[in-house]
Amino acid sequence: MREELKGRTAYGAPQLDVPVRLNTNENSYPLPEVVAQAVEKALSDEIRGLNRYPDRDAVGLRTDLAAYLGLRAEQVWAANGSNEIQQQLLQAFAGAGRAALGFGPAYSMHPLLCLGTATSFIDAGRGEDFGLTAGHAVDAVRRHRPDVTLLCSPNNPTGTALSLDIVEAVLAQKQGLVVVDEAYAEFRREGTPSALSLLETHDRLIVTRTMSKAFAFAGARVGYLAAHPSIIEAVQLVRLPYHLSALTQAAARAALAHADVLLGTVEAIKQQRDLIVSSLREMGWQVADSDANFVLFGRFPDQKTAWRRLLDQGVLVRDVGLDGWLRVTAGTPAETAAFLKAMKEIR
Amino acid sequence: MREELKGRTAYGAPQLDVPVRLNTNENSYPLPEVVAQAVEKALSDEIRGLNRYPDRDAVGLRTDLAAYLGLRAEQVWAANGSNEIQQQLLQAFAGAGRAALGFGPAYSMHPLLCLGTATSFIDAGRGEDFGLTAGHAVDAVRRHRPDVTLLCSPNNPTGTALSLDIVEAVLAQKQGLVVVDEAYAEFRREGTPSALSLLETHDRLIVTRTMSKAFAFAGARVGYLAAHPSIIEAVQLVRLPYHLSALTQAAARAALAHADVLLGTVEAIKQQRDLIVSSLREMGWQVADSDANFVLFGRFPDQKTAWRRLLDQGVLVRDVGLDGWLRVTAGTPAETAAFLKAMKEIR
Repeated sequence: MREELKGRTAYGAPQLDVPVRLNTNENSYPLPEVVAQAVEKALSDEIRGLNRYPDRDAVGLRTDLAAYLGLRAEQVWAANGSNEIQQQLLQAFAGAGRAALGFGPAYSMHPLLCLGTATSFIDAGRGEDFGLTAGHAVDAVRRHRPDVTLLCSPNNPTGTALSLDIVEAVLAQKQGLVVVDEAYAEFRREGTPSALSLLETHDRLIVTRTMSKAFAFAGARVGYLAAHPSIIEAVQLVRLPYHLSALTQAAARAALAHADVLLGTVEAIKQQRDLIVSSLREMGWQVADSDANFVLFGRFPDQKTAWRRLLDQGVLVRDVGLDGWLRVTAGTPAETAAFLKAMKEIR
Repeated sequence: MREELKGRTAYGAPQLDVPVRLNTNENSYPLPEVVAQAVEKALSDEIRGLNRYPDRDAVGLRTDLAAYLGLRAEQVWAANGSNEIQQQLLQAFAGAGRAALGFGPAYSMHPLLCLGTATSFIDAGRGEDFGLTAGHAVDAVRRHRPDVTLLCSPNNPTGTALSLDIVEAVLAQKQGLVVVDEAYAEFRREGTPSALSLLETHDRLIVTRTMSKAFAFAGARVGYLAAHPSIIEAVQLVRLPYHLSALTQAAARAALAHADVLLGTVEAIKQQRDLIVSSLREMGWQVADSDANFVLFGRFPDQKTAWRRLLDQGVLVRDVGLDGWLRVTAGTPAETAAFLKAMKEIR
């Protein structure tokens, strides 16, 4: 085994069977029936052709994703979750002898994806309040000259979106590629722009997205990116041939054909998110502003004990390894009620 | 972009819409109806739960694959095709600063998977007749001291299985890991053993398999490996979390529940394979012995011209980049007839 893997344990939140699972930022709402039926039909149509390899370049799916984003197919690439998207980006543009820069606490897979691709990962950190300023980000880019800069907007696990002037300030350094991980973008608060709006004018920008969250499609594993067509051509040099199954492509296309219905849960989840934020603040907790479907809250003298006490009441949240803080997913009204009730119990 | 990727073109056989496609070693037979219906049912049962992440460790699927092989679940790992399996193995056991040894011509993805994982790839070659001897293999292992040795049995594109004494001789060197790629194992000629029989006594051995070929499941992307449980634990440190979708897991399990029916095409394909071998030899061509669902044949003064002339008659075969040789997949009797007719035309 590679030296740097020795002594490590496999990544992953506990997959526990409890009544209220609010630990992996899943969408608590199953697919609406009209969408479920469309997916069912699309999958049935693929089965008799499964002896053949799928479309290696997933052109149909990329065309549909591009239409959703208001882009062209050659600006979009899809893979098995945005983890695979980001792994492919690191394989093509970073890897051995190269470096990626991040600002932790951020998405915990970023350093692990760097480990798996032999990319040096540099964590430039954040302010006391988990905030990130343009000055801090630009200083770090100038100092470390990374091949890839990883930004998260909204950031995970803190939940807050980046203002675009930070992304633009980093892009203005013309240093390597800039990846903005927008896995939770559909949940952002009104008036918060997406980095997609910078795509036409910035060749070095890559925006990654997923269907796991807003589209309630975590089980189907569909992530994607939007970027200049030359980026997509480069990723195709490292992608595994036929990486995306015929079933995945068909299911995703059927879901996208009903994007309006499917995204109907987003507003409901945002309301629960805002209710969690305001309720916890009323209870005296510190809570980060959230543009996502989750909320970071604290501070606990010991978050491990708090995590366990919530679990004892049937509510599973996430200990993201941040001293004093826990992360909870915003789900249904019943889940919010169960979570807030449990929080009152552990005071 | 990484220097070593510059100027390259993306991997992949042309995906052309022609009457007779015999270029990617697909199984020409669609799923039997009873299997198709079982898969359809299994997929339908998953759709309403797609908002949740899949089982990260695919325990159910691994249990079923293990039962097929006569092993235990902890000896088996599954991923999106055996390409992803082999990529994970290189990430865990090879990668930057390490080397993999192969014996070309062999599976053309092996050097590309090494490129994508920054693993040095050493090609120790084969004899004039594409044969591999224990002496040659052992000499190469001693000389290069690879972290991973990649063997293919049956070999692609030549089609011939390795005799187990070669695998045992390489294992006896106790040098790194030994991967035996058995993607086509179900098609091997009678009396040809699988490297699986060495698993109990050799901790360094990894056998990789796929459902793409014998199981007619290329579109679903299911590859797997069998090895000592410690190997599977190591792979779990580099696998992307939730790499295998709920749809993939469910479809594969439904298919495996009907393995007997599904593998019913294997004998029919072997007959066509043997017919292609004997017919081409009667026509005066050189043909490698085949334990797979494809046949390597030649020698053409220029295989590119021959490939084009076959295509002009609606028959797509594979130019594997081997001077004077072409590779054809064994499919249905009608496909064999069309191929042999086209071969007579181009004499």
